[in-house]
Amino acid sequence: MSRRPWGAAAKPIGWYDEKLHTLFTKKGYAQRFQVLRYLVRGKKTPFQTMDIFETRHFGRVLALDGIIQTTEADEFVYHEMMVHVPLFALGAPRDVLIIGAGDGGILREVLRHKSVRRAVMVEIDGDVVRDCARHMPALNGGAFKNKRGQVIVGDGIDYARKARSGSFDAVLVDSTDPIGPGEVLFTDGFYRHCRRILRPKGVLVTQNGVPFFQPDEVTTTRRRLGRIFRDMTFYHLTAPTYIGGMMTLAWGANSPAARKTPLATLDKRFKAAGFKTRYYTPAIHKAAFDLPPFIAELAEKAGRKKRG
Amino acid sequence: MSRRPWGAAAKPIGWYDEKLHTLFTKKGYAQRFQVLRYLVRGKKTPFQTMDIFETRHFGRVLALDGIIQTTEADEFVYHEMMVHVPLFALGAPRDVLIIGAGDGGILREVLRHKSVRRAVMVEIDGDVVRDCARHMPALNGGAFKNKRGQVIVGDGIDYARKARSGSFDAVLVDSTDPIGPGEVLFTDGFYRHCRRILRPKGVLVTQNGVPFFQPDEVTTTRRRLGRIFRDMTFYHLTAPTYIGGMMTLAWGANSPAARKTPLATLDKRFKAAGFKTRYYTPAIHKAAFDLPPFIAELAEKAGRKKRG
Repeated sequence: MSRRPWGAAAKPIGWYDEKLHTLFTKKGYAQRFQVLRYLVRGKKTPFQTMDIFETRHFGRVLALDGIIQTTEADEFVYHEMMVHVPLFALGAPRDVLIIGAGDGGILREVLRHKSVRRAVMVEIDGDVVRDCARHMPALNGGAFKNKRGQVIVGDGIDYARKARSGSFDAVLVDSTDPIGPGEVLFTDGFYRHCRRILRPKGVLVTQNGVPFFQPDEVTTTRRRLGRIFRDMTFYHLTAPTYIGGMMTLAWGANSPAARKTPLATLDKRFKAAGFKTRYYTPAIHKAAFDLPPFIAELAEKAGRKKRG
Repeated sequence: MSRRPWGAAAKPIGWYDEKLHTLFTKKGYAQRFQVLRYLVRGKKTPFQTMDIFETRHFGRVLALDGIIQTTEADEFVYHEMMVHVPLFALGAPRDVLIIGAGDGGILREVLRHKSVRRAVMVEIDGDVVRDCARHMPALNGGAFKNKRGQVIVGDGIDYARKARSGSFDAVLVDSTDPIGPGEVLFTDGFYRHCRRILRPKGVLVTQNGVPFFQPDEVTTTRRRLGRIFRDMTFYHLTAPTYIGGMMTLAWGANSPAARKTPLATLDKRFKAAGFKTRYYTPAIHKAAFDLPPFIAELAEKAGRKKRG
């Protein structure tokens, strides 16, 4: 952080308390950050309230409606795991649709895969795209100017509805929680369009919350996606600022082929890709599908209810 | 929590802010809990300051010197992983030494292994043992009255120094962070005694912090234990209230035999043991040794420096 004069030596101006588990889930629990300064403070976009602030340990932090979305210091975990698990599982994906992800981190990781010739990112809130590009440029890391990338400020549901059938290898849904503008990204209608626009071996991955705090997201998604995709499961990651332990990502596909890609094949693909990661490895990729019983049982219960 | 009249309906009386990453590591970050009531508040034991408080989502929470030690809701993660990984790797452990762990959670999990005929727990702070037994009885779950268990209020270092050579199959060090009374449990002298009192295939496991916040604990432990044990590595777990993402446990042994136990063998042993877990599974056991590069590189760097 030495490039910033207000970095290490700066005096904190106060605390930022996340509202996710106080106002929204009402768990009476919060993470809080000492703020060195605000880059964006309480900005009302047409969709939500945005804050971007500077911290000592996490670099810059993006919050929407009081909920932490990403931080410079730990964004690599979520972005690597949401992108490289489906893309290395697929092998040579060509077309990728990204819904949400206005900070650009998902697009950046997708474009590291040389087989990708077109990555379309549809984010509803143009202010998030603009302000992140300005204040957290490392998040998109040049991806917003990459010719293989296309950034659309618009409605992701609408885009999925109008997109051609079988035109994408992967759909990655980097939504906020099912509160506010992200809510419609957790519905049957949207998931059905995702299935339709995927190629036969294609994969849908969606953000699915932290089961320790939000167990219902696992059961609800299991039921919904289980009705729509033949192969439906979850995989996990551990990101420091998505508090409450492991987060799950939901995985939907019509063929188990991609999910069952052997470790040796993943190893070969990862080596051939030739880029470095900080969290993702092929071994961690495979292991991520092994859920601890306290999470696996939530999914199983929902599966049983569906059939019962 | 329905057994408690002050449970769900109770009004919070204030917030408890953890001090680990404000006062101690100075990262300007904290987790905070809404407190329903205090069972123990600011009690000065001969070694540290203790709080036990009631929360809505985490049940009762134990804090020492302002640092969260365990909560009723998520203690299972740490306790299962510290115990079942070494004990199932060993197969039929008979004698287990536990240092620290005054809440009793480690002893409880150790005694679920029927091969264990003697589990000695040495905790320096008798107030922690007594107050946890009274206010968080599920933590020891009857283990304090089990005849195969022996609870000693005393100095763990001293106990290790005086113990017979080759008399334990596993030594489990459930220390606080290297601040306060736990500090001496992170030294060469102590680790050498642990090696001495272990049987040839025995295993030492120690709490090693959360690398995202405390990367030095990985490098320091790698150097220290690497000098003492032929087989030295780390494995990870994700516990909600050990904030900052994955925590590492350090693993030291003179033989790689236990660490290399195949998955099929672990599966067989786990099935034969016949008890349920909420986080541990043989698959998670094996996967826990695959560290993400951002942690693995800390250990490798320390390894290189040692040889250089």
